[in-house]
Amino acid sequence: MTTQPVIILVEPQLVENIGMTARAMMNCGLTELRLVDPRDPWPLHDPLQERMDAASSGADEILKNAKIFDTVQAAITDLNYVYATTGRTHDMTNRIFTARGATPDMAQRIAADQKVGVMFGRERTGLVNEHIVLANAKITIPLNPEFASLNLAQAVLLIGYEWYQSRDQTPGHQLYSSHSRPATREEYLFFYNRLEQELDEAGFFVAADMRPSMTRSLQNALQRAEMTEQEIRTWHGVLSSLIGKRKKAGNA
Amino acid sequence: MTTQPVIILVEPQLVENIGMTARAMMNCGLTELRLVDPRDPWPLHDPLQERMDAASSGADEILKNAKIFDTVQAAITDLNYVYATTGRTHDMTNRIFTARGATPDMAQRIAADQKVGVMFGRERTGLVNEHIVLANAKITIPLNPEFASLNLAQAVLLIGYEWYQSRDQTPGHQLYSSHSRPATREEYLFFYNRLEQELDEAGFFVAADMRPSMTRSLQNALQRAEMTEQEIRTWHGVLSSLIGKRKKAGNA
Repeated sequence: MTTQPVIILVEPQLVENIGMTARAMMNCGLTELRLVDPRDPWPLHDPLQERMDAASSGADEILKNAKIFDTVQAAITDLNYVYATTGRTHDMTNRIFTARGATPDMAQRIAADQKVGVMFGRERTGLVNEHIVLANAKITIPLNPEFASLNLAQAVLLIGYEWYQSRDQTPGHQLYSSHSRPATREEYLFFYNRLEQELDEAGFFVAADMRPSMTRSLQNALQRAEMTEQEIRTWHGVLSSLIGKRKKAGNA
Repeated sequence: MTTQPVIILVEPQLVENIGMTARAMMNCGLTELRLVDPRDPWPLHDPLQERMDAASSGADEILKNAKIFDTVQAAITDLNYVYATTGRTHDMTNRIFTARGATPDMAQRIAADQKVGVMFGRERTGLVNEHIVLANAKITIPLNPEFASLNLAQAVLLIGYEWYQSRDQTPGHQLYSSHSRPATREEYLFFYNRLEQELDEAGFFVAADMRPSMTRSLQNALQRAEMTEQEIRTWHGVLSSLIGKRKKAGNA
């Protein structure tokens, strides 16, 4: 049972691009590659095989398992839904997805036991109309309209990237700590109160009327740092060290 | 006034990667590139210059305007907020964004007149800790943990892609028609009624008890096609043609 979209390269011209496509796929957890009428006869021989493997940066398992077809029809015959990637607007009425819009659609179809595939055209020309019409829908990636110049592997990467993101649960923003937990409000307050007391003793608050806004400002900045328990302890040490220096200087 | 993130490559080793980075940036509408201590002395001379320009596929304006710095500190000194891209988890507590999570943050900062930048480390090693600590936050792109192997320009592409998407208004899914508007329900119904009447005359509905489910099924399939007014007219022609053929056959 295929649980991911199949990547279909139509008439790829350069073995480096096939290798880089495999690398892009592997980054995104995609493994099933089909090639339609590649320029160089398959199986490849050295040095073409070497050049492709080098470009794949270790994703050669995908290349070993790649299936070769003579025609687009043959390559998609077992699929239920096919997306044709295209950078240009063609004179056909058709469903058009963005890369981001397409991946939930793929996921829903796959969850319903459909086999889906994404076709990519050959370098320079892209997919031609006779191949696009064989697909159920188009994908056009929104990019700078004055300079839309993705290479083949980059186009595969963006589709694969969206596929991976649609299934990934990583929060968009988090505070990472490998060794320590976030400080509690109590730990914050304890440190802040100690700081304020030491500043009092050091004569920091010269103008009494400035004191409320000054203490708020100090607390705010500390709070925004979102320190860990370990970091609060480090700053206690910093404070002790600075006091020690001043007191020593005062004693001298 | 900078209205987009600055891209900062730290110690890039290969001029091809600098060229491909410019290409990736241009695809995403990014134009401001800074290089920190590139391996090959700047300005480049041929054949390095030629190799870089070739890799940029026409994005050489970005390369011409690229600024060169000796140190990371110098390259980011005028920026208000810097993101460090990294594929690995480091032993530091820090804000971590995904690529998707980071771009709204960038946009909000830029809207508030902040200058922001995104740093990318050198090929193979990525950013080292002494450079990461100079940044305000990290960006880690969620990808296959068993094979996270983006090249430099691909990492820039994914950040640039997310930047472009965060500002792009293209609907995730649309039905495009260059020449014709979507058919109205009336046009649909008129075609369907004509089809049903012709099927009646042709003796299609042999079992009367099957008729309700059959007519529903035909209407459903037609409706899902979401045809344009032009396409409905074409299908009227198809119907006329098939009737003509049958009637002619009947007359013969």
